[in-house]
Amino acid sequence: MTNTPMLLHFAEDLTQASGIALAAGMNLAAIARHRFPDGELKLRLPSALPPRVVLLRTLDNPDEKLVELLLVARTARTLGAQHLTLVAPYLAYMRQDMAFQPGEVVSQKVVGQFLADLFDAVITVDPHLHRVATLAEAVPVAQATVLSGAPLLADLIASHLPQALLVGPDEESAQWIAQAAARHGFDHAVCHKIRYGDRDVQIALPDIRVQGRCVVLLDDVASSGHTLAAAARLLLSAGAASVDVAVTHALFAGDALQVIKDAGVGRVWSTDCITHPSNAVSMAEHIARAFH
Amino acid sequence: MTNTPMLLHFAEDLTQASGIALAAGMNLAAIARHRFPDGELKLRLPSALPPRVVLLRTLDNPDEKLVELLLVARTARTLGAQHLTLVAPYLAYMRQDMAFQPGEVVSQKVVGQFLADLFDAVITVDPHLHRVATLAEAVPVAQATVLSGAPLLADLIASHLPQALLVGPDEESAQWIAQAAARHGFDHAVCHKIRYGDRDVQIALPDIRVQGRCVVLLDDVASSGHTLAAAARLLLSAGAASVDVAVTHALFAGDALQVIKDAGVGRVWSTDCITHPSNAVSMAEHIARAFH
Repeated sequence: MTNTPMLLHFAEDLTQASGIALAAGMNLAAIARHRFPDGELKLRLPSALPPRVVLLRTLDNPDEKLVELLLVARTARTLGAQHLTLVAPYLAYMRQDMAFQPGEVVSQKVVGQFLADLFDAVITVDPHLHRVATLAEAVPVAQATVLSGAPLLADLIASHLPQALLVGPDEESAQWIAQAAARHGFDHAVCHKIRYGDRDVQIALPDIRVQGRCVVLLDDVASSGHTLAAAARLLLSAGAASVDVAVTHALFAGDALQVIKDAGVGRVWSTDCITHPSNAVSMAEHIARAFH
Repeated sequence: MTNTPMLLHFAEDLTQASGIALAAGMNLAAIARHRFPDGELKLRLPSALPPRVVLLRTLDNPDEKLVELLLVARTARTLGAQHLTLVAPYLAYMRQDMAFQPGEVVSQKVVGQFLADLFDAVITVDPHLHRVATLAEAVPVAQATVLSGAPLLADLIASHLPQALLVGPDEESAQWIAQAAARHGFDHAVCHKIRYGDRDVQIALPDIRVQGRCVVLLDDVASSGHTLAAAARLLLSAGAASVDVAVTHALFAGDALQVIKDAGVGRVWSTDCITHPSNAVSMAEHIARAFH
């Protein structure tokens, strides 16, 4: 047993895990996973672990994966791990950061503390934080590291559409859009959004000329796709030459991809934070660099 | 706000919750539950809670429900609860109580400690414990209460088949079968079981005459149904007049119910620890009595 850190991963995440381990100089080991007919998980880790262990697990389908994290982290401590880092390229439960009605569960706070009880450090990409300023407030670990998919997506957009107009679907994306745009001098703007329900959103276009422009809608996460679809329809009605979509987190719940295709969106690009056919850029080297 | 204890439940558990609350003299309140398109849960509790709060949640589909328990228990403490009891008629993750291979996760220990960190007391029915003797070893809370469905199932069997031969599908059920049998003087015996995989089991009948007998297979849990089906086939081949099944926990994963029907099983009876069309007896009064 050497002191080289070990990156633990599940079989389906082998590609991302290999990329990170190679770039960060870590050993790589898979966690064996079996689901019993009754829905319980059986997991097996390597029988001995070095002092520093990193677990790669992105948190789409969060409920199932939070239980995996509990089982893996508690067991890793008994097998020799002294410092545990969670790499969760997509971090779930970050949006519910206050009780809008009395009695409402503030999931961000509960899940954040749950993760902080299990791990010493957390690395994530573009967490969806609204009313808290830093990841460490949401996930109170000793080291909370935030990376962004925006620069990689901006580079990708620049290679395809050097004259693109970057549009954010809502005000929350303003700072993020500005950063991505600055990297290549893109024109940019953000829409105004009013949300009536999970799948019921209303969008107003920004006061900018879109006629004849190749527009790229840039966002941190695509979930139901309804916000992106509404924005795409408005942009095309206003005369945009094309509308493509670039997102860090390709959740695309249910028929979301079809919803945005039906709205006239051409290409869809995403980072590999969540495995999806739209993945066009890999976060592996950025994540590996966070360990240096 | 009175000091009367409050029983919290989810909408689908209203029937069981009402029965318990009525018999135990508790107030009843539902937890509002919404699932976002991205798979995250939003929960809302009553805005103020009395000092003593009881949560009813049976733990089939355990991964999803363990996250619910985390969210509810942590939030209940912030809303006034000082003493939290979990009533989990079916308690998941109790079977993996040792590492059969190095590195294997001992889920019972991890999940047991997780529950003990959230709750002050746990009440369950017929937990599937092998190598630990008491529930308190598996779930180290101050008060760990075990109830049994066997007496109620024995009474039900006696009302339908006073001359029944009770058969346990494996040695693990021996003590349980003996208790149920003693209540009404039933003949009884247990099979010998060798397990090769989740759905691959081999059964040997006990050395007892089954020719012409009305047999009831009695077990704590029916999961894949393969053990019960194998036992039923052997019993019918050996000349049993009929084979019915009675279980505390009607998990019946996937096509399990069809599997045992195809094996020639007639009636299937269960307690309401897990909601299922086979539910024939209610545990509500037994559970309520545990609070006295």
